[in-house]
Amino acid sequence: MVIRSLLTIQEALHSLDEIRLWIENRNRSIHVSISPVPFSSLDHWSQDEDGTLRHSSGRFFSIEGIRVETDYGSLSSWTQPIINQPEVGYLGILTKEFNGVLYFLMQAKIEPGNVNCVQISPTLQATKSNYSQIHKGKQPLYLDYFVNASPDQIILDQLQSEQGARFLRKRNRNIIIKVEEDVEEHDDFRWMTLGQIKELMRYDNMVNMDTRTVLSGLKISDYLSLADDTSRLSVFGKDLLLSSVTNHCHSTISEHLSWLSSLKSRYDLKVHPFPLRKMTDWRVLAGEISREDGKYFKVVGVKVTISNREVSSWCQPLIQPMQQGICAFIIKKINGVYHFMVQAKLECGNFDVMELAPTVQCLTGNIPSSRSARPPFLDLVLESSGSQVLYDTLQSEEGGRFYHEQNRNMLVEVDDSFPLELPERYRWMTLGQIYQFLRFNNYLNIQSRSLIAALNYLS
Amino acid sequence: MVIRSLLTIQEALHSLDEIRLWIENRNRSIHVSISPVPFSSLDHWSQDEDGTLRHSSGRFFSIEGIRVETDYGSLSSWTQPIINQPEVGYLGILTKEFNGVLYFLMQAKIEPGNVNCVQISPTLQATKSNYSQIHKGKQPLYLDYFVNASPDQIILDQLQSEQGARFLRKRNRNIIIKVEEDVEEHDDFRWMTLGQIKELMRYDNMVNMDTRTVLSGLKISDYLSLADDTSRLSVFGKDLLLSSVTNHCHSTISEHLSWLSSLKSRYDLKVHPFPLRKMTDWRVLAGEISREDGKYFKVVGVKVTISNREVSSWCQPLIQPMQQGICAFIIKKINGVYHFMVQAKLECGNFDVMELAPTVQCLTGNIPSSRSARPPFLDLVLESSGSQVLYDTLQSEEGGRFYHEQNRNMLVEVDDSFPLELPERYRWMTLGQIYQFLRFNNYLNIQSRSLIAALNYLS
Repeated sequence: MVIRSLLTIQEALHSLDEIRLWIENRNRSIHVSISPVPFSSLDHWSQDEDGTLRHSSGRFFSIEGIRVETDYGSLSSWTQPIINQPEVGYLGILTKEFNGVLYFLMQAKIEPGNVNCVQISPTLQATKSNYSQIHKGKQPLYLDYFVNASPDQIILDQLQSEQGARFLRKRNRNIIIKVEEDVEEHDDFRWMTLGQIKELMRYDNMVNMDTRTVLSGLKISDYLSLADDTSRLSVFGKDLLLSSVTNHCHSTISEHLSWLSSLKSRYDLKVHPFPLRKMTDWRVLAGEISREDGKYFKVVGVKVTISNREVSSWCQPLIQPMQQGICAFIIKKINGVYHFMVQAKLECGNFDVMELAPTVQCLTGNIPSSRSARPPFLDLVLESSGSQVLYDTLQSEEGGRFYHEQNRNMLVEVDDSFPLELPERYRWMTLGQIYQFLRFNNYLNIQSRSLIAALNYLS
Repeated sequence: MVIRSLLTIQEALHSLDEIRLWIENRNRSIHVSISPVPFSSLDHWSQDEDGTLRHSSGRFFSIEGIRVETDYGSLSSWTQPIINQPEVGYLGILTKEFNGVLYFLMQAKIEPGNVNCVQISPTLQATKSNYSQIHKGKQPLYLDYFVNASPDQIILDQLQSEQGARFLRKRNRNIIIKVEEDVEEHDDFRWMTLGQIKELMRYDNMVNMDTRTVLSGLKISDYLSLADDTSRLSVFGKDLLLSSVTNHCHSTISEHLSWLSSLKSRYDLKVHPFPLRKMTDWRVLAGEISREDGKYFKVVGVKVTISNREVSSWCQPLIQPMQQGICAFIIKKINGVYHFMVQAKLECGNFDVMELAPTVQCLTGNIPSSRSARPPFLDLVLESSGSQVLYDTLQSEEGGRFYHEQNRNMLVEVDDSFPLELPERYRWMTLGQIYQFLRFNNYLNIQSRSLIAALNYLS
């Protein structure tokens, strides 16, 4: 059912072209305007004497200052703004079987920060504030299906983290449910197959981050049976399935766990509240909180106006990146089995000190000119070309919080000449091992999950 | 090797009687005196205006106040003192093979809070402050073996939590290593088999909490091969092995994970620093921090004097319980396979909101007279008798922090008439499923692990 969904692209309820046209039309017919607004004029938001930005409901999210102390990396202490949203929200996809194929009910969702207005989003994307009606808006569509889901309807249900450099210990409940009854396909929603969604991830900024994190948890090989027609899988797809089920791993899970225990014990991470207005290197201005050197990101106050069938507008803070970023996995066959080079990375907002990140995850705005000062493997990834590059697209961060933030997502294969021996914070893992970590909370970071979701099994 | 260690009790390097005598002699020859000292006179400790107690090194541990807000349970907010010790310490056991049997190098360790002076402890029990010489004492024995352990020497290496009601997000690195070279058996150390240590857990307060948490991670069935002589296993031991390897589980791991995601999303837990002196219901006196109603626990300042071959003394705060507690697993055969009834329990110091606790984990000092106000299954456990009760001993909490704190540890079997249907926070898990959660950080709480470690496979 999942496998047939993965294999079905053209002969689906809606063709791929129809879906792309639908998104393009949405993008043309909707106008999103973002205008800067001083924090003091942000409706329903207030700024206290420390500079903290809070929603008037006291819930939703806030922008706060933190002071970070750690013995990881070259900087032992710094201050920065961070998004604090302690609630666990839903990222939910509703699925249903039509003619033996599983379809995912996807939404064309407008978010103020999207580079294009509309991206393909989960059926339900709701914070606790959303669904408990803090905004006094309408109840989100399809919410009841998720709230009332019975255990046998649940395909996947995991707590997963968001960006550790931007969110303070934020997590969402990633959930996929399957229903039997008829479900209305509302205007902004379309039934899509897994294969179609993965195809759409080949395009820049088409499938939003929330969709990618939810789908990353679906371990394809779990659904494969001898009865499935695998002739349409690509050679690479078959290799991924092997990497997902094999016991021929370069290291065992116990060894990986020991490695993580050792690193998590070694590095301290202390995060304390710190007044935004007292931060070093950052300044709180009337309409933005930014660094004097122009690095990393800034917090801006905006008024969002969306003109669609009706006009709606609201104010909120958004995070605007000052630099582009890159997230890349290097993969390599070891004894015929693909292994992913995973990095244990400490980020200040991490729930559990270190998470498993892609081989390369960094900003590319101002790469140091000295090679030795650059992040490991960055040059290799940037200089890769041709058949080495298995995936290379721009993917957006969540447009509800981030303004025009996109990262280059890459998958780069290296050959036998690449050394097996890795620096201390790096390990070779099979896809099966990555999925084992993914099932349990707070191991795979969101950048890794985005890349895992994009793995394409077809030619 | 592990299995032979489990099966070897009498024909070991030291007989069980020798070991018990050794501990008894230690207890007789050592005198520990604990005298109350006002906080203002605690050497190397200071109390600030909020009432917080800190070590003069700024490290080690501190006693701080917190304010807890949660929508779990009947109390939505409270204040309490808590132990804050952000460092990850080592709880390490060194092992070595003699004649094909694995031996564990155990220590007769004095801790000020032990009800008896000496308990059987891991080879190494060291906080980062200990081993980085904050105390300016000698370097702990055998430390180098752990610091320099190579990956192939590591049998087990996990980060595990401590008591969530007493420690703020504290974790230790539980590690077992195996060495080949000759190792000196120092005065306070003895080589013991796994079977012997498990036998000693049948006695009250003989094996300390740190030993129990480390050994709980050893999944016995992982070491069983067809070549092992299993004739000495008890029927119960064989049933435990079945529960450890079977796929015949009442619910799948995915279902358990979904259940946990749902509960962790539902319940909020917010913990803020709060001045001890401003706490409601608690008072900070000259030499103790305690509740006016005498409940739960109190923090006391003590001077510890240990007279042994030499006399040593120091001052520190200790936590003294005001009530006894009980930790019990109810187990039941479902389709011939033992299942443990696990409880998802929120405690204020938990690293990740809820951990998996025993069926019953509560204080027994003042049980409400109304049955409906008592914790679920408490009456059943307290009223169990005869062959239903598979394990029933008193076990100590860590004597370095807790003064004479012991909990009744029980394993109670229920029969077919006991309903399969459970309240929402309770689930049936096989032993194999429990071990799957145990491998990953912050799932099984320390009370559960203590009971799992005590499972005895012999008659």
